[in-house]
Amino acid sequence: MRERTAEVLAQVDGERVWRRLLDLSCCGATPGGGVCRLALSEEEVAARALLVRWGAEIGLVASHDAAGNLFLRLEGAAPDLPSLLVGSHIDSQPTGGKFDGAYGVIAALEACEAMVRAGRRPRRPVEVVAWMNEEGARFAPGMMGSAVFAGVRRLEDVLAVEDAAGRTVRESLSEVLAREKHLPMRPLGFPVAGFIEAHIEQGTMLERAKVPVGIVTGIQGKRTFRVVVEGAESHAGTTPRRERRDALVSAVDILKALQTELWDPADEVRFTIGRFEVTPNAPSVVPGRVQFSIDLRHDAAEVVRDLGDRIAPTCERARGVCAVSVRELLYDQPVAFPPTMRDLLAGAARDAGLPSLVLGSPAGHDARYLHRVCPTGMVFVPCRDGLSHNEAESIEPGHAEAGARVVAAAAYAFASAD
Amino acid sequence: MRERTAEVLAQVDGERVWRRLLDLSCCGATPGGGVCRLALSEEEVAARALLVRWGAEIGLVASHDAAGNLFLRLEGAAPDLPSLLVGSHIDSQPTGGKFDGAYGVIAALEACEAMVRAGRRPRRPVEVVAWMNEEGARFAPGMMGSAVFAGVRRLEDVLAVEDAAGRTVRESLSEVLAREKHLPMRPLGFPVAGFIEAHIEQGTMLERAKVPVGIVTGIQGKRTFRVVVEGAESHAGTTPRRERRDALVSAVDILKALQTELWDPADEVRFTIGRFEVTPNAPSVVPGRVQFSIDLRHDAAEVVRDLGDRIAPTCERARGVCAVSVRELLYDQPVAFPPTMRDLLAGAARDAGLPSLVLGSPAGHDARYLHRVCPTGMVFVPCRDGLSHNEAESIEPGHAEAGARVVAAAAYAFASAD
Repeated sequence: MRERTAEVLAQVDGERVWRRLLDLSCCGATPGGGVCRLALSEEEVAARALLVRWGAEIGLVASHDAAGNLFLRLEGAAPDLPSLLVGSHIDSQPTGGKFDGAYGVIAALEACEAMVRAGRRPRRPVEVVAWMNEEGARFAPGMMGSAVFAGVRRLEDVLAVEDAAGRTVRESLSEVLAREKHLPMRPLGFPVAGFIEAHIEQGTMLERAKVPVGIVTGIQGKRTFRVVVEGAESHAGTTPRRERRDALVSAVDILKALQTELWDPADEVRFTIGRFEVTPNAPSVVPGRVQFSIDLRHDAAEVVRDLGDRIAPTCERARGVCAVSVRELLYDQPVAFPPTMRDLLAGAARDAGLPSLVLGSPAGHDARYLHRVCPTGMVFVPCRDGLSHNEAESIEPGHAEAGARVVAAAAYAFASAD
Repeated sequence: MRERTAEVLAQVDGERVWRRLLDLSCCGATPGGGVCRLALSEEEVAARALLVRWGAEIGLVASHDAAGNLFLRLEGAAPDLPSLLVGSHIDSQPTGGKFDGAYGVIAALEACEAMVRAGRRPRRPVEVVAWMNEEGARFAPGMMGSAVFAGVRRLEDVLAVEDAAGRTVRESLSEVLAREKHLPMRPLGFPVAGFIEAHIEQGTMLERAKVPVGIVTGIQGKRTFRVVVEGAESHAGTTPRRERRDALVSAVDILKALQTELWDPADEVRFTIGRFEVTPNAPSVVPGRVQFSIDLRHDAAEVVRDLGDRIAPTCERARGVCAVSVRELLYDQPVAFPPTMRDLLAGAARDAGLPSLVLGSPAGHDARYLHRVCPTGMVFVPCRDGLSHNEAESIEPGHAEAGARVVAAAAYAFASAD
């Protein structure tokens, strides 16, 4: 087996990976050097066509499903076995970079090409996948395609979501599928044997450790909230402090109380107020209303639960003379990928002669939902300064090759096993 | 004289005052029962046209100046004498009420109409005035038209000010003046004999004392600042607290430090953060920048000076890992109106048979700047619960009439004197 894996690894071509990443980034290229390739946009249609063409050149058969997920199938020696899926997403943020998502799809394609070129057809089919709308930038929330595939969300609910212009997923998706009407339609959520996703780290651990690949233990749990503080508008020049119901004063007290209540000396809790809006937001008017977001993340389910549950009571305790309401928008449990998949990927890194680091994923990925239906694992590659969701997002060609080698070795080993 | 004043007073019509207030409030009416009539907006253009039409019906000649101030002139028996100006402003806060500013302009118009209907042309011309951009909600700081008229600010500086959308006063004002190109253009800061401004109190002293009119002794001193806190944007899911430079966290610490440093147990200091803006203001991005306003007021010059001087050092002390810059936008000394004008207005209240209360103005008004160039006085009428800069702002029709009677009697007496 090790010998056959070495033959596959010998066919992984870093230059081809890099060229395809840059070619794909032409679909939605921005003047600032980044990518704007929103889900189900014209730019994404072009990128999907490019993937289908590249797959066809090496004999991969393209298909899609009713949720807009795109598959490129390398047939297995035992074609009736459930497939191994390998991939990520190709949609981007409005001012996104060239690598977030795209890297995982191109690495998966390279893994298939290396097997084909090495003449090593695996036992199971291997399918490159590009999940529909991971970013959620146009249609919120994201990870739509993987959520529907995994049965976490209903297709009907997802189709009804509207973008800011009032267009639904249903309208946009039917146009995309019509453009690909030559492709066979797969059943939603067909049985799969496993899922491997490569992704840029979006953090600085690999860069600091100077290690080219990361084996991901899991994904942080995440809860998000919207807090509304209601006071009363009044005149800044005339209203004494004792008569004010200043929503900003209460919001500031609430923020300080939350900081204290959620304080983590170990600095493992991620607690962020990213959005904060004051109404009417005029210099001489005492604020009548403040609305802010809370983003809370941690690896441990019980920490996410306990700290998240303290948010509403803390807001209530610190609200002063104003009223406060807290609404939870999202509660994602932490994910721990199975040891079998972590071992598979760590072994693949060893086979590829690459040092690896074991680390967690603070950001969410499609792997979160695939984890519900099949053994799932993730590989990270470093990205410069941890920057992503940013036009300046950047990775090293050598790291792109390293990740592709790990994906190829792991995919071949998984799909060839009895 | 007292007899002629009584003839003028007999022509003051409370129903007409009330009807015009409600008519004017249709220009920019909000679903919440208030007014959004920002300076130099389409809504204000409509309101100005209404004033010009009402003035023309009783023979007042409209004109404007290069700062966008609007005048409606009742010619005097001695037309070469400097005019008495009477009025206020008609721009509003984004969620403002029907009466703030508008009341003073309508009361001035009523004073002129009463003189016309009584056949009592005064010796001096009397001009109703609506000053440009008193509120400063769209273009900060406010009292622009009166400041330019009084020579406190240069027209060129004011024209360069931008709103949040990046439009300058120059662009917006040239459009407004073009819409009124049939009106003669007056020289900036033409000589005036005096200024009388009626306004809602925006406080609760008159309401509590159950007195229909207030004779104003002066205006609080005021300093305003813009504070910018600069941190660094980063990913909410991946960036540990010790690596963050969260501009919102620093801004909150600065606010708490300012509250402590400027704390006034007597509750006479007015300290307000009314505008507060976070960038990029996205739920999963650590804020890189916060900009907020400070509005500080007090009756005593030395308190305004000492507390204002503590703001920059306090911001610097509490800034944490972020950078902070503090820019002073406005420093207005407290104003004491001349006893001659206070006596004139108190006498007018007696002539109108109305009890009056002597009180200070915590809010700034255009009278602050006119005070620099001519004898100036102010009359207040009660407003419900002291509410203003609020859609729920409300006054009694009887109080609207009472204030108009005082303005009519005072304006007639002033303009008729030798």
